[in-house]
Amino acid sequence: MTEDKLPTRKENFSEWYNQLVVKSELADYAPVRGCMVVRPYGWTLWENMTGGLDRRFKETGHTNAAFPMLIPLSFFEKEKEHVEGFSPQLAVVTHGGGEKLEEPLVVRPTSETIIGYMYARWIKSYRDLPVLINQWGSVLRWEIRTKLFIRTAEFYWQEGHTAHSTEQEAREETLRMLDVYADFAINDAAIPVIKGEKSETEKFAGAVQSTSIEAMMQDTRALQSGTSHFFGQNFAKAFEIQYLDPSNTLQYCWTTSWGLSSRMVGAVIMTHGDDQGLILPPKIAPLQVVIVPIYKNDTEKSSVLESTNSVFKDLKDSGIRVKLDDREEVTPGFKYNYWELRGVPVRIEIGPKDVEQQSVTVARRDVPGKSGKSSFTKAEVAAKMHPFLLEIQDALLARATAFRDEHIHEPASYDDLKNIVQDGWAFAYWCGSTTCETKVKEETKATTRCIPLEGQPKVAGKCVVCGNKAEKKVYFARAY
Amino acid sequence: MTEDKLPTRKENFSEWYNQLVVKSELADYAPVRGCMVVRPYGWTLWENMTGGLDRRFKETGHTNAAFPMLIPLSFFEKEKEHVEGFSPQLAVVTHGGGEKLEEPLVVRPTSETIIGYMYARWIKSYRDLPVLINQWGSVLRWEIRTKLFIRTAEFYWQEGHTAHSTEQEAREETLRMLDVYADFAINDAAIPVIKGEKSETEKFAGAVQSTSIEAMMQDTRALQSGTSHFFGQNFAKAFEIQYLDPSNTLQYCWTTSWGLSSRMVGAVIMTHGDDQGLILPPKIAPLQVVIVPIYKNDTEKSSVLESTNSVFKDLKDSGIRVKLDDREEVTPGFKYNYWELRGVPVRIEIGPKDVEQQSVTVARRDVPGKSGKSSFTKAEVAAKMHPFLLEIQDALLARATAFRDEHIHEPASYDDLKNIVQDGWAFAYWCGSTTCETKVKEETKATTRCIPLEGQPKVAGKCVVCGNKAEKKVYFARAY
Repeated sequence: MTEDKLPTRKENFSEWYNQLVVKSELADYAPVRGCMVVRPYGWTLWENMTGGLDRRFKETGHTNAAFPMLIPLSFFEKEKEHVEGFSPQLAVVTHGGGEKLEEPLVVRPTSETIIGYMYARWIKSYRDLPVLINQWGSVLRWEIRTKLFIRTAEFYWQEGHTAHSTEQEAREETLRMLDVYADFAINDAAIPVIKGEKSETEKFAGAVQSTSIEAMMQDTRALQSGTSHFFGQNFAKAFEIQYLDPSNTLQYCWTTSWGLSSRMVGAVIMTHGDDQGLILPPKIAPLQVVIVPIYKNDTEKSSVLESTNSVFKDLKDSGIRVKLDDREEVTPGFKYNYWELRGVPVRIEIGPKDVEQQSVTVARRDVPGKSGKSSFTKAEVAAKMHPFLLEIQDALLARATAFRDEHIHEPASYDDLKNIVQDGWAFAYWCGSTTCETKVKEETKATTRCIPLEGQPKVAGKCVVCGNKAEKKVYFARAY
Repeated sequence: MTEDKLPTRKENFSEWYNQLVVKSELADYAPVRGCMVVRPYGWTLWENMTGGLDRRFKETGHTNAAFPMLIPLSFFEKEKEHVEGFSPQLAVVTHGGGEKLEEPLVVRPTSETIIGYMYARWIKSYRDLPVLINQWGSVLRWEIRTKLFIRTAEFYWQEGHTAHSTEQEAREETLRMLDVYADFAINDAAIPVIKGEKSETEKFAGAVQSTSIEAMMQDTRALQSGTSHFFGQNFAKAFEIQYLDPSNTLQYCWTTSWGLSSRMVGAVIMTHGDDQGLILPPKIAPLQVVIVPIYKNDTEKSSVLESTNSVFKDLKDSGIRVKLDDREEVTPGFKYNYWELRGVPVRIEIGPKDVEQQSVTVARRDVPGKSGKSSFTKAEVAAKMHPFLLEIQDALLARATAFRDEHIHEPASYDDLKNIVQDGWAFAYWCGSTTCETKVKEETKATTRCIPLEGQPKVAGKCVVCGNKAEKKVYFARAY
């Protein structure tokens, strides 16, 4: 029982990621083109993420519901930009129950259309508004090049869909949910993200305004980690989502949608992992602590196991997600590697010396080697573990933030920008034209990630590409 | 704002159900043939049910995972009975990304095949066993006649899939999960269920043994509410799920699967509801208490709202799912009907007299009229509410159990059986032959529901149909 070594991140970041996902048993390739299987360890991680999101959705007044996975093809044709955006990615059911269907059905790539159809039936009066619904599930978008968690044909996500009586309320909802995503990413996943607005070319098919949170991976590429869209009345007009206002006049609703997907699992891996494997933030880690007993003979074994069992019980009783690895067929060294690969934040080692001293050795996953080791007395393990896990959570966020900030530069010139985006993000004035955006993309592979909502300069400047007047700064980066 | 009255259960039980589901806003018909939309109120009810189940799955050592919704058609052909059983119900994706697929993909009707394929890849050694995985999601089975929650093309469920090294362990798992289902049905949904084994004709396509929990609806029809299957080595052989035993010999695994679906929501409606609407068991009700303020003028309003707000806060703080219905555009009487239709277990009325006496009026949904009303002092509402809800939960189970037991009879003859199944279940000796089973079905529309695991006679008897020797008794009933 050995495990092949991962390539280092420096050698080959992409291969490091691909192998790590499979070896750590987060996910596996499915026997269906472009699809993945999320294994128990990966799904538990995702459940811990969805739990934190779902709580935030409910705190902001949303409830969950479920809409069909199949959507009549004709629904897509009702919103012009939407159908253009999604047509190339559709999987189509043509037969059901042994017969050819009269109208083909699409496996949902996103649910604006069918939810819009239902909202039109349900919403009659201003008293029915706002409608604040979220759906957890999976969607399907035919993809050619896939990467586990980051880009697969079927992926797991939530999609919120809301309808409002005023433009202002819908715009506020769009930004409120972007804030929810940012709060989740920063505080639960320990990923510093930048909130901003998408450019015209990067926005969602059918949206008036798309916003996103953008994260920097350790190869400095950007990962769009959640999006929130303001639709104006586009879908309301396409699906006749109307309400009677207090003066009994028929009005179109203003709608939004927002989604965050299992690609966030990929973001966690690529933000925190190291050459030994995953490093999972304690708040979302399936296991927060693993205990490894160390002994050489039966006498030692009995006293060591007595101690590991009692520490296990103390931690479990205090609500820690803990595992006692008492396998006999593998060595402690094997177990260290095994759980390091899987990113468990804290390892507790208990050997005969620890037993004698009524203590345990505690090793931090995020600080390898001796400097990450300390000794807790056995009696205080449970009490100390909660603040210790929070300390690790904070350290991961601080490290990722420092890394990101070190790799964001403001280019002095267009040539400078070209260099910067080879190993970082360029934060630069941009005139807003698609021409300049396309030029950068073609010449550097970097795209506009977002026009940040915060930290914009107060004075206008010159577009880094064309030199024309530019009101705002944008992030240019190569992206996943 | 008025709501049309429901037909009574006696007038038309089926229409009572169909209208109630839509009017109470649990679910709605989707614009896709045979599919439903589960609305926020219905989905919250389902979430409260899945929460109780998921906790039980985890307590019995299972973890969740996710497998693709699309399955290659060829996978179904590997298990002969399985493909025969499911072929007529498949929805088939023939096109993806604008092109015809080389091999058609099936939207999963159940996941034994794709999970079996993955288990064959993951399981190498006896040390990898047992594998205990559950999946939450939806599946699709093309259905001609549909009924919201009870039978729809797409439905929501969980499917557990386990692999074991011994037959005994797999058989134990099958019954363990049946016990979990029964425990959930009885204690959370307040539905008394009978655990038993399915006949050859009623069992799952590909199973060696199928077991189920069976519930009686108020029209005395049976509803299969959860199933647990022992597959022997059928799927292990079809998908080559093998492991090396301790002596290094290759062995086939023994597998199981078990599922409980959103039809359980239908069971709750048809077990507990009355002519005024839903009656939801407190443990799973989206709202446990609704508070209705009653006042005639602004002076009354201000003191009443002060009281409702403070009671609302007390209940919320003590963990009760409570809603304050302070709508101004509808009368208290309208609100009573509105929340009765939606089955909220407890209504609290607070009027000027209650304010004066520092008390609240409490009305039980399950006991209509005066006999269900009592008065709590305002100070004790929160403390009393938890035991009060438990009392209601118990009363619902007791009532449903009494109803069921009154409608189960042991037929003295075959003619007697014919009468019994018109308005109840017949519990009778059966020889086990498909001939006798089919005869009963053709002549009475009653099918064998299950051979109960408990309460079997100790001596053999005579088959109620053919008079031949019969070892066991079975339930015959018309079923959903």
